[in-house]
Amino acid sequence: MTSTSTSALPVSSSAAVPRYAILVAGGSGSRMGADRPKQFLNLLGEPVLLHTLRRFTDPAVQLAECVVVLPAEQFATWEQLCQQHHVTIRHRVVAGGETRWASVRNGLAELKQYPAGLVAVHDGVRPLVSAVVIEQTFAAASQHGAAVAAVAPKDSVRGLAQQGSYALDRSRLRLVQTPQCFELNLLRRAYQLPELPTFTDDASVVEDLQPIYMVAGDYRNLKITTPEDLIVAEALLRAEQGAQQPQ
Amino acid sequence: MTSTSTSALPVSSSAAVPRYAILVAGGSGSRMGADRPKQFLNLLGEPVLLHTLRRFTDPAVQLAECVVVLPAEQFATWEQLCQQHHVTIRHRVVAGGETRWASVRNGLAELKQYPAGLVAVHDGVRPLVSAVVIEQTFAAASQHGAAVAAVAPKDSVRGLAQQGSYALDRSRLRLVQTPQCFELNLLRRAYQLPELPTFTDDASVVEDLQPIYMVAGDYRNLKITTPEDLIVAEALLRAEQGAQQPQ
Repeated sequence: MTSTSTSALPVSSSAAVPRYAILVAGGSGSRMGADRPKQFLNLLGEPVLLHTLRRFTDPAVQLAECVVVLPAEQFATWEQLCQQHHVTIRHRVVAGGETRWASVRNGLAELKQYPAGLVAVHDGVRPLVSAVVIEQTFAAASQHGAAVAAVAPKDSVRGLAQQGSYALDRSRLRLVQTPQCFELNLLRRAYQLPELPTFTDDASVVEDLQPIYMVAGDYRNLKITTPEDLIVAEALLRAEQGAQQPQ
Repeated sequence: MTSTSTSALPVSSSAAVPRYAILVAGGSGSRMGADRPKQFLNLLGEPVLLHTLRRFTDPAVQLAECVVVLPAEQFATWEQLCQQHHVTIRHRVVAGGETRWASVRNGLAELKQYPAGLVAVHDGVRPLVSAVVIEQTFAAASQHGAAVAAVAPKDSVRGLAQQGSYALDRSRLRLVQTPQCFELNLLRRAYQLPELPTFTDDASVVEDLQPIYMVAGDYRNLKITTPEDLIVAEALLRAEQGAQQPQ
């Protein structure tokens, strides 16, 4: 399914390399205890996924193509939500797979017409990602081939041991967010390898082929996972909107 | 300085072992970019530290003694805030040291009159800790000697390498919160050992003497560290208050 709207994404000639994005939304809603998948939960009047789509298709991001990966059974709901919210943002929608890995692979296949470029993979339920974080992650991927947004843990970190637990040096650890940006052909090569149970994100899929560079993410760039996350996202979004009001 | 109020803490005979708490607040405010230390920031009308003090001195917690550790230069401000907010909660205030370790040690010294019991060390800037988390951490410390509240990371975790980074198995990792609860004499023994640069919390101080048991914490039990944390804490506190209203 491709959105029927004809409004093109604003591709500027100043982006040296074409940029693509795959927004992955595979949630069924069970973990949230909600009546609908978390990507469709209402966040200050609009579905979470629509916020995310708006962030990535902002003119500042200079995206050439945006692919949204959704469970096939949610296509109709998404189309209905897009109509309801008068969404004219051009984007493609493709069906997700059984796992996140399979979903991203399906998203990548939708970009097969493009010979090269940079691709961002982003969680559909990280609606607060900033243009700055997207820009810096794309820029780092352009330089290093593979770059992910990440933040330092605010808490101490411990590992589970057979008896009790042990301390880790948190100054050497990062909590990995999305976007995770890659050279398009590097990500393609990585997704030709077999799926492993250790794949929790795209960095883990790519890391055998290319070192993963980490870019400063943003603590506000939260992933909506548990019920309190929606409360937190609303508060942060309100604060952001308040900050943008003229004084 | 000891608060002059005479209202006793409600010590119930049902708590088999006496319980003590050390609330550590060492912040100067510089990391928040605020005009005052983060423990004194206004959270829905009351200072952050007062919220934290209320949580620990709730009758359900059955605390016998509460020690607040503050930089000496903040004593006057705290006393003024307590007067302003009509605080009648009995608690002792002791001066912090150069490091978190030195501050906790000073707090422990304030409990020297007690021969035994359980002690919780808690960040003064974790104002949203629930009675359930406090109870379960005390209970686990009673059984295992040392227990800390912790949550599983929601994000993938990576370690910094010389070139790039490497994935860690997040299912084996925990983000450590407070309270961290210990047998009083175990914590005393641990704080007689020399300070090490690897001490980021009390679990790391104790772990050479005793395995650290981890208890399910709460994602809402955030530490107010960066400016957005105050926005988040306000939203979570409002939601909590809303949930407590009669329907």
